[in-house]
Amino acid sequence: MTKGTPSHWITGVSQITPQDIYIRGYAMSELVGSVPFSAITYLLVRGELPTRGQAKMMDVILSSILDYGLQKSGTVAARAVVSVNPVMTAGLGAAVLAAGEYALSPEDTGRFISENFAAWKQSGRPMDEAAASLVEELRSVKRRVPGFGHQVFRGVDPRSERLKAIAKAEGVWGEATEWYEAVHRAFQVASNKPDLVLNDVGMLAAIMVQMGFTPQEMCGLAILSTFPGLIAHISEEMQSGIRNRLIPDTHVEYSVAQRDLATALREAGWV
Amino acid sequence: MTKGTPSHWITGVSQITPQDIYIRGYAMSELVGSVPFSAITYLLVRGELPTRGQAKMMDVILSSILDYGLQKSGTVAARAVVSVNPVMTAGLGAAVLAAGEYALSPEDTGRFISENFAAWKQSGRPMDEAAASLVEELRSVKRRVPGFGHQVFRGVDPRSERLKAIAKAEGVWGEATEWYEAVHRAFQVASNKPDLVLNDVGMLAAIMVQMGFTPQEMCGLAILSTFPGLIAHISEEMQSGIRNRLIPDTHVEYSVAQRDLATALREAGWV
Amino acid sequence: MTKGTPSHWITGVSQITPQDIYIRGYAMSELVGSVPFSAITYLLVRGELPTRGQAKMMDVILSSILDYGLQKSGTVAARAVVSVNPVMTAGLGAAVLAAGEYALSPEDTGRFISENFAAWKQSGRPMDEAAASLVEELRSVKRRVPGFGHQVFRGVDPRSERLKAIAKAEGVWGEATEWYEAVHRAFQVASNKPDLVLNDVGMLAAIMVQMGFTPQEMCGLAILSTFPGLIAHISEEMQSGIRNRLIPDTHVEYSVAQRDLATALREAGWV
Amino acid sequence: MTKGTPSHWITGVSQITPQDIYIRGYAMSELVGSVPFSAITYLLVRGELPTRGQAKMMDVILSSILDYGLQKSGTVAARAVVSVNPVMTAGLGAAVLAAGEYALSPEDTGRFISENFAAWKQSGRPMDEAAASLVEELRSVKRRVPGFGHQVFRGVDPRSERLKAIAKAEGVWGEATEWYEAVHRAFQVASNKPDLVLNDVGMLAAIMVQMGFTPQEMCGLAILSTFPGLIAHISEEMQSGIRNRLIPDTHVEYSVAQRDLATALREAGWV
Repeated sequence: MTKGTPSHWITGVSQITPQDIYIRGYAMSELVGSVPFSAITYLLVRGELPTRGQAKMMDVILSSILDYGLQKSGTVAARAVVSVNPVMTAGLGAAVLAAGEYALSPEDTGRFISENFAAWKQSGRPMDEAAASLVEELRSVKRRVPGFGHQVFRGVDPRSERLKAIAKAEGVWGEATEWYEAVHRAFQVASNKPDLVLNDVGMLAAIMVQMGFTPQEMCGLAILSTFPGLIAHISEEMQSGIRNRLIPDTHVEYSVAQRDLATALREAGWV
Repeated sequence: MTKGTPSHWITGVSQITPQDIYIRGYAMSELVGSVPFSAITYLLVRGELPTRGQAKMMDVILSSILDYGLQKSGTVAARAVVSVNPVMTAGLGAAVLAAGEYALSPEDTGRFISENFAAWKQSGRPMDEAAASLVEELRSVKRRVPGFGHQVFRGVDPRSERLKAIAKAEGVWGEATEWYEAVHRAFQVASNKPDLVLNDVGMLAAIMVQMGFTPQEMCGLAILSTFPGLIAHISEEMQSGIRNRLIPDTHVEYSVAQRDLATALREAGWV
Repeated sequence: MTKGTPSHWITGVSQITPQDIYIRGYAMSELVGSVPFSAITYLLVRGELPTRGQAKMMDVILSSILDYGLQKSGTVAARAVVSVNPVMTAGLGAAVLAAGEYALSPEDTGRFISENFAAWKQSGRPMDEAAASLVEELRSVKRRVPGFGHQVFRGVDPRSERLKAIAKAEGVWGEATEWYEAVHRAFQVASNKPDLVLNDVGMLAAIMVQMGFTPQEMCGLAILSTFPGLIAHISEEMQSGIRNRLIPDTHVEYSVAQRDLATALREAGWV
Repeated sequence: MTKGTPSHWITGVSQITPQDIYIRGYAMSELVGSVPFSAITYLLVRGELPTRGQAKMMDVILSSILDYGLQKSGTVAARAVVSVNPVMTAGLGAAVLAAGEYALSPEDTGRFISENFAAWKQSGRPMDEAAASLVEELRSVKRRVPGFGHQVFRGVDPRSERLKAIAKAEGVWGEATEWYEAVHRAFQVASNKPDLVLNDVGMLAAIMVQMGFTPQEMCGLAILSTFPGLIAHISEEMQSGIRNRLIPDTHVEYSVAQRDLATALREAGWV
């Protein structure tokens, strides 16, 4: 099997031996019970055992999205699926697919931060100066900066403040989060919007960049956060006794009128 | 690689060589254009080139379910998914999962027919006598016979009659379909319901048993029948500009009241 | 909207108001940070805030499966998917579907325990006597009891012992787990296999029955346990640069020989 | 329900009435049997009844991809899934997700052609002149033109020629296909590669643009083409008796060594 071919596999995630399962190199029999699930999540995804602080931050990240009930398309999809196919995996499979461009996608914000943070690090320029010129550049091409703004909050988003306080307390605050805040300040100035907040999605993404997660891993962790709620909804749906969820005709407008097939077949040359 | 291990694969579906792709042994470059897609569908699933009659029947089977619009949970799930994640594969993936116990599952009927047909063949008993005793046995344990009955049709289901006529005309009518009709007659007599119809789902399943499809393959073909409609719905949804499909609060009853966390934490021993 | 119709929804999982998101009635802004993710998982799925002990047990349950690396079909499926479609949700969606009859399905064991436990409770019979007659009945119809036996362990499965010790320490040991142990003892006697262990899957399922989870919820929690590992594998695959995972020809046996289409078309009556 | 809200639905795909199901306005009871499945596919996706020629072209499109056996990641994913969860829908769901950036994605080529074709139409410039300047522009930013080139074929790709001949014969050749050929000629000249072929993926996409399909619909049709093969593979896998497909250790390189947890816990400050 040649390295690099589609049938040659390299993995560092885990290895099974007759003695034990090795999770990122650590014996599972020793691991479980020694550290909580959040710490194991960090270990599996990042590859290294977290400090207590990193594990605590991870726990807060996993608790950060949770459930939007029937106001979330993924819940609707999952419950619709199990109303005809009452199987947990089928419902979860559908829900997982309902994360993307318009919801549950911290990876866009994460990608913005991690790419621009890396570029700044390489540039060697002073942080605030580099942030200002990035903002200028983005504004000149009318590109939106993800993670800024909120419908209600002005000046400060209390959720972001709380996340920042935890990150500082747990020792996971650092250059990447500082950089994103610098971009935020530069944006407030350049756009003359001193009240524009750095919102919770932005803060979470910045913290995850600081912790070393890739944008795609952020997407996975966001979905993981919604999993307990999904299990609850799917279970509730299966116990409801309702079958075949559908859209009632009162909510539907049919845009095509009935038409005559015989005429259409003639016109299209079938008869 | 030892035969039978999870990493030893045997397949007869197709093979790629530098010269051509061989579909069930036939060169794809010769196949396409020689016979229609319905015939290739039969070839791929059954392993043999169909006769013209079998291909025609296959075409009717693929055209038999099509689309129930927003009265189908799979459509709702697919459209909900792409309202946040506007990607064709995500929508199709969700829709495919919405086939099972309560919808789009001809395999249950197919399993009933194929198992009992096989048992009868092995028994060597006269058809009507065997059908009568099967019905008696099922009724004694109050087991439902799938494929019988309809909300509106009495005596005859015109859709079944049409399928039967096509099956006879195309030469795919045979012992399995005859057997299922015998079971139907026996059931009408035993239950004293002479008007109980053999419905279209039952007739389709019987014809597919006759053609040699397994119950799981029937499920696959049923989903294939709905695919053009799904593509249409997903495309329509993505072009609609609507984001984040949800259930409006007017349709939701919340069964849990707001409650005080501090009290609950104290009672559960957290503080 | 009439109660019980497919377009009338009842939910107690969560509710969004302009002020806050209410998770099982508790304000999310207060909840996050007060209790760990494992406790929130229990709250969302079971509907009630856990005790510290229940939350600790939940954490152990979430840590109980984790990752089997490339020895698990779900990992293979997920990595194959993202090798052509490098999107986290697509990989997770495929992996979630790879739980069922032959892997990752604690719900079968859970269903066995919860159904028989409920039946015993209703019977009012002494535990050991009822367990003995259940075992006798199962053996007479040659039905397997799930959760017993192991390829290596004899007498005692150390993993089960550890789970039992935690359950006792955390106050989640009770009648359901006692009942399952009674069935185990009765089975050892009736089958004359005093060394047959009660394995970890059985113990986990019994504890989850004791905690009040339904069999389908157990399936969801099992998948949740594997999620961090899945994120890790999918991320690793996307970073590997390998495209189009396939099965090398050295592992494949092609069971259909090339054949002549012209002949086949003639024989099938096409030309 | 206000138009444009996530709970207001507009659809023209189909409508169910007590009398019949109306597919794009036509009564299903009349439709089935009158025209083949390929024609119904066109009707559902495009919204109009095709001519015989369009239906014939549609049939060829549906027959154009079919099956790459175990050389396709989607097949591997689907078979891995059903080796633990032997359910047709689960296998199909996984396979559907294995279409994207690196395989089964005619939508990229389709998007290129349809966008540039639309831009040219609006420009009013002569075709060859516009094609030449588009190519120049693309080459100056080093952007690849999708659909050109092949590992083996030089000058002419016989598969493309065949598709073109069918498109002309069936009356679906037109301005969009002509435009794409002009771009191809301009590219041959500008790159001084007179032997660079217009390949089958490019020709198919151009024909689908000419027929009015959107890029996302092209993706759906490509997956539909692979469905019969997928059903065949999933069925074959479920009948194989193989459980738990995995990657044999001979094909895996483990990149993480076993390491000591106690040390790591101490270093990370856990103990």
